[in-house]
Amino acid sequence: MKKYILFFSLLISATVFAQSSDETAIKLIFDNSLREGKSYEMLHHLSTKVGSRLSGSPGAAAAVEWSRHVMQDFGFDSVWLQPVMVPHWVRGQQEIGRVINSKKIGTVPMNVCALGGSIGTGPDGIVGKIIEVKSFEELAQLGTKNIQGKIVFFNRPMDPTQINTFAAYSGAVNQRGGGASEAAKYGAVAAIVRSMSPNIEDYPHTGGMRYAANVPKIPAVAISTKHAELLSKLAKEDKDFQFYLETHCETLEDAPSFNVVGEIKGSEYKDEIIVVGGHLDSWDLAQGAHDDGAGCVQSIEVLRLFKSMGYKPKRTIRAVMFMNEENGLRGGTKYAELAEKNKEKHIVAIESDRGGFTPRGFTMTASDAVRQRIQSWKPLLEPYGLTDFGQEGGGADIGPLNKQGVPVLEFLPDSQRYFNYHHTPEDTIDKVDKRELELGSASMAALVYLIDRYGLK
Amino acid sequence: MKKYILFFSLLISATVFAQSSDETAIKLIFDNSLREGKSYEMLHHLSTKVGSRLSGSPGAAAAVEWSRHVMQDFGFDSVWLQPVMVPHWVRGQQEIGRVINSKKIGTVPMNVCALGGSIGTGPDGIVGKIIEVKSFEELAQLGTKNIQGKIVFFNRPMDPTQINTFAAYSGAVNQRGGGASEAAKYGAVAAIVRSMSPNIEDYPHTGGMRYAANVPKIPAVAISTKHAELLSKLAKEDKDFQFYLETHCETLEDAPSFNVVGEIKGSEYKDEIIVVGGHLDSWDLAQGAHDDGAGCVQSIEVLRLFKSMGYKPKRTIRAVMFMNEENGLRGGTKYAELAEKNKEKHIVAIESDRGGFTPRGFTMTASDAVRQRIQSWKPLLEPYGLTDFGQEGGGADIGPLNKQGVPVLEFLPDSQRYFNYHHTPEDTIDKVDKRELELGSASMAALVYLIDRYGLK
Repeated sequence: MKKYILFFSLLISATVFAQSSDETAIKLIFDNSLREGKSYEMLHHLSTKVGSRLSGSPGAAAAVEWSRHVMQDFGFDSVWLQPVMVPHWVRGQQEIGRVINSKKIGTVPMNVCALGGSIGTGPDGIVGKIIEVKSFEELAQLGTKNIQGKIVFFNRPMDPTQINTFAAYSGAVNQRGGGASEAAKYGAVAAIVRSMSPNIEDYPHTGGMRYAANVPKIPAVAISTKHAELLSKLAKEDKDFQFYLETHCETLEDAPSFNVVGEIKGSEYKDEIIVVGGHLDSWDLAQGAHDDGAGCVQSIEVLRLFKSMGYKPKRTIRAVMFMNEENGLRGGTKYAELAEKNKEKHIVAIESDRGGFTPRGFTMTASDAVRQRIQSWKPLLEPYGLTDFGQEGGGADIGPLNKQGVPVLEFLPDSQRYFNYHHTPEDTIDKVDKRELELGSASMAALVYLIDRYGLK
Repeated sequence: MKKYILFFSLLISATVFAQSSDETAIKLIFDNSLREGKSYEMLHHLSTKVGSRLSGSPGAAAAVEWSRHVMQDFGFDSVWLQPVMVPHWVRGQQEIGRVINSKKIGTVPMNVCALGGSIGTGPDGIVGKIIEVKSFEELAQLGTKNIQGKIVFFNRPMDPTQINTFAAYSGAVNQRGGGASEAAKYGAVAAIVRSMSPNIEDYPHTGGMRYAANVPKIPAVAISTKHAELLSKLAKEDKDFQFYLETHCETLEDAPSFNVVGEIKGSEYKDEIIVVGGHLDSWDLAQGAHDDGAGCVQSIEVLRLFKSMGYKPKRTIRAVMFMNEENGLRGGTKYAELAEKNKEKHIVAIESDRGGFTPRGFTMTASDAVRQRIQSWKPLLEPYGLTDFGQEGGGADIGPLNKQGVPVLEFLPDSQRYFNYHHTPEDTIDKVDKRELELGSASMAALVYLIDRYGLK
């Protein structure tokens, strides 16, 4: 009985789609998503059964298998893996950070975690005096005579007055990405970086860092914002204390991994490819529910919605689970390489990597013509809360496609809560609201529907 | 030292305000709110130290004292109480709902809670067969011959496809408010109402109900959505089971309580009053963090921000903590009565009672001229995510003022998560995000600033 009902409802959907106005089609997408969307169910599994999945880890391998199976089970036309070698960094045993020899507070443990890509101190640890700076300029002014042999403490907070928290993140994250090498230029022995968070919290936020060429590599950690405040206070009051740092992280040989691609073949212009994607890897400390499990399941859901509603796209739609966004971008780079090698024609790529929050719009990096075409659909999308189409941007994983001239967009949800959880053990499924997540999937599906129907020329 | 810095920064603020453009003034409001806002700190106290505060309860009395003290401590020009008698409904001991005599599942406890205002079954409980309906029309068609002696189960869900969850709530809440009396017209012995929630959950949502005149009063409860689904399934499969319901709620004598009002006197047009408000009472099951602790602290915060920034309003600004929105509206009614009696000139009233989520805009019920004036400020407010000024509406507590001709507005935050928590034990402080809450306060302050500066004529 159930099967007949399903078949019947598919028939209705297909008919409605063929005959309907864009308004009706988009309402159908949102209705289906809000009534019977599978994004949350998928994300629940990915977050709780697969869990953390840093490149090269067993979790990443499990996530590859999981997403391949899911897309096969939904009956997409093809599902395949793209082999790619990825960096393999491991944290090792729990880090130790500790204020020692302080006259004010004696010995105090501090919440730190190694930054991804950092070398470890090894079991002997590192001891040094702390010198606090807010910027690379301040560091340069202090110079070797003040920095040599010390641990540099980068403590510039994310600007809380930025309404867009991603702008605040951009304004602070150079400390995490490049702070260690900048400090090492002046002889620092380690770097401690204030966590990228707008809040005062107990837990540190990890994230990627890179070493510059021809500069000694020194260990780098993030410190919780609460302890960053405490450390700063202490550094002003007590000139004599030292900091003990012990980390056991290391970078192993590159490991084999995969992008996972699922596809529905276009009925009319099958050579024109529309990509929707997220990144499958996540930091080792958490479930990676918002970052970027949300983007992965939303991308799969776009194709699943179309199939379940009987919508047959004219163009080829691909869901791509990129591997290794967090510490290497190897998956995104490989995808673009293969696209070029295989002479594939990508007409657009859309990423979701800002969390599964209430939709606000899309950012884009595209020609004026493409931008205007997309903005012309605003009246169709505004009833669903999608009002912001004015910001520049696109996801990291599709940056390499953009370099080949492919227009790129990023799904833009509300940004207020994203950095509460980003790269921490708090990025768990209970921080995701089902309606907000499904609305994001529907938003992406609605945009893909319009691009599929009308193209971008 | 600290005092001098504070004094100096106040001076700067006051100067900036006097000389600045509206853009600068509004940015100053948001910056202050995001850097040093006190909304979350206040709400944390109200939620965790005062807790639930249904009209007539000790919690409500404590909330009155708390808000009076807070506004006095912030140094508002005047703070006073407006006495008002309120309904005094008490839940009594934990309710019991139970499927009995079912051949399919035997005896099964069901999660129910009495609706506010309901009579109790008393210790003997009520036993009856269940008859499920989706609407009052269906009930009328079934008529006395099918309803007599039974327990009517209202099971129309909130429509999940409504993007605005308040619209979905409006489409279902007549079952809770009026279902019992509708059912009693046909001889029902009790009413069970599906909880007002877009989700499938374990916990029931309480809320107000009213008895119609000249109809027998019968007990009414809410059932969790998960158990509503189960009960519905069972009712289709098994004609013989019964339901046992036991509730101990009762309505006591009206109790004395208060609205709490804080005021900053206007410097130029002190007779022109701008009200910002929320309701101080909350359901007995929860902390009432979003409903409506958020609205209360945001209203207080508007005045506190002005004071702390050295902004001296031209008009008189009042923060009003209305008592008894949830089950009587006595506070809102009393406030409007006194306003009329004292010949006060209210130029506008703004309520916040949709939770402490990310700001989206304001609803309004006002003349075209007032509406256009407010909408003309959209370019100043859009950078803060306030884009929606098109919806009709205003808060319940300020409805009586609106009847006297006062334009009313309601702060409009994102609605997706509100009904996850509404009227349940889940409405707790950990569901509130500090940035989202403070942004709401700043949004209200920015609008009040513009109204204060330019008036509404």
